[in-house]
Amino acid sequence: MRLRNKPWAEEKLKKYPQFVVPDPEKWRGHWQALFGNSNPLHIEIGTGKGRFISEMAEQHPEINFLGIEKQPSVIVSALDKLIEKNRPNVKLLNADGAKLREFFAKGDVERIYLNFSDPWPKKRHEKRRLTYRTFLQLYEDILADGGEIHLKTDNQGLFEYSLQSFSEYGLLLKNISLDLHRSDFSGNVMTEYEEKFSAQGQRIYRCEAKYLNAPGALQG
Amino acid sequence: MRLRNKPWAEEKLKKYPQFVVPDPEKWRGHWQALFGNSNPLHIEIGTGKGRFISEMAEQHPEINFLGIEKQPSVIVSALDKLIEKNRPNVKLLNADGAKLREFFAKGDVERIYLNFSDPWPKKRHEKRRLTYRTFLQLYEDILADGGEIHLKTDNQGLFEYSLQSFSEYGLLLKNISLDLHRSDFSGNVMTEYEEKFSAQGQRIYRCEAKYLNAPGALQG
Repeated sequence: MRLRNKPWAEEKLKKYPQFVVPDPEKWRGHWQALFGNSNPLHIEIGTGKGRFISEMAEQHPEINFLGIEKQPSVIVSALDKLIEKNRPNVKLLNADGAKLREFFAKGDVERIYLNFSDPWPKKRHEKRRLTYRTFLQLYEDILADGGEIHLKTDNQGLFEYSLQSFSEYGLLLKNISLDLHRSDFSGNVMTEYEEKFSAQGQRIYRCEAKYLNAPGALQG
Repeated sequence: MRLRNKPWAEEKLKKYPQFVVPDPEKWRGHWQALFGNSNPLHIEIGTGKGRFISEMAEQHPEINFLGIEKQPSVIVSALDKLIEKNRPNVKLLNADGAKLREFFAKGDVERIYLNFSDPWPKKRHEKRRLTYRTFLQLYEDILADGGEIHLKTDNQGLFEYSLQSFSEYGLLLKNISLDLHRSDFSGNVMTEYEEKFSAQGQRIYRCEAKYLNAPGALQG
């Protein structure tokens, strides 16, 4: 995403601690206490301007949502949506997804959403892709048994790569759609990007990858 | 495939036992004796008019190929190609793919090609799809350890289904291409269907699924 510099963004984020969690390390292992209920926690890594996470929260009051985004100038738009809707079951984290272990203990998270992540198409940047095996290990360390990754992308290369990476890691692939907007999948909530790309006629790819109770990484 | 009735087809197949193996049960467990060498055996299930298998045999003299097709009026066109090219490393089997266990012992086959198989799109016909789990079990019973299925199709639904079925069965997914003819995959040999469909601008999907030495079917 091209970033517009917003020097005031960080200050604004600090003014809304009820929506932008200022001290995520503090809630490691007991996020339910922050939300004041025992509902499952779903997180989105790279939450961008927050349309997905805020609409999901509206549609699923029985789930707690946390949108993670490292760019203050982007997440500030997500904050605006949360202020407007003022729902108790969605919060934001202005942080780098690579630091998930500092914020979450094993089992804290039931589901991870990866929506339109940077494809990092060059082979030498493979390790930066959010479905590279070190990230899959990272997710395993915070997910509950049977936890899932739900991935959407318009990038064919990233989708091919991710299916293979999930398979190599021993995850179970479910609900694969190679053309989401012309499929019978219901309940799809679009991101800002998704609306733009699909309006241009581009295919949206989607899949779910489930961590099994006793996986054992598959070896090729 | 729409079939033209060719009452003479079966008679013709019998006239060329050097190309159309008349007694496949006899070679169960020792196909190398039939081919007169110790090269690996690759089979195609649903070989149709035989363009794929005959061109593969031409390009890969170090592999033995066997094309299996149940329709006499179709396989007879494959026979014509084999007669013309007269290569020692490719033969045909006029038989039903469901009977593979009668023809092959565990380890006889190194690789199985599934090209543009009938998608059987109705849910109630799922069991007929060549990537349904009972077929994956059948293939496992004849493949060598580490053996592979190489799948191509233009049918989006069959491809989505097959990826999930492979994953559920615990196979390792490799070399997934969601648009084969606009990918960097080299050495593709086209089938008759493939040429027609891709000329119409349709995407061709491809993947490889590898049986691991100690898989243990993944449970969802």
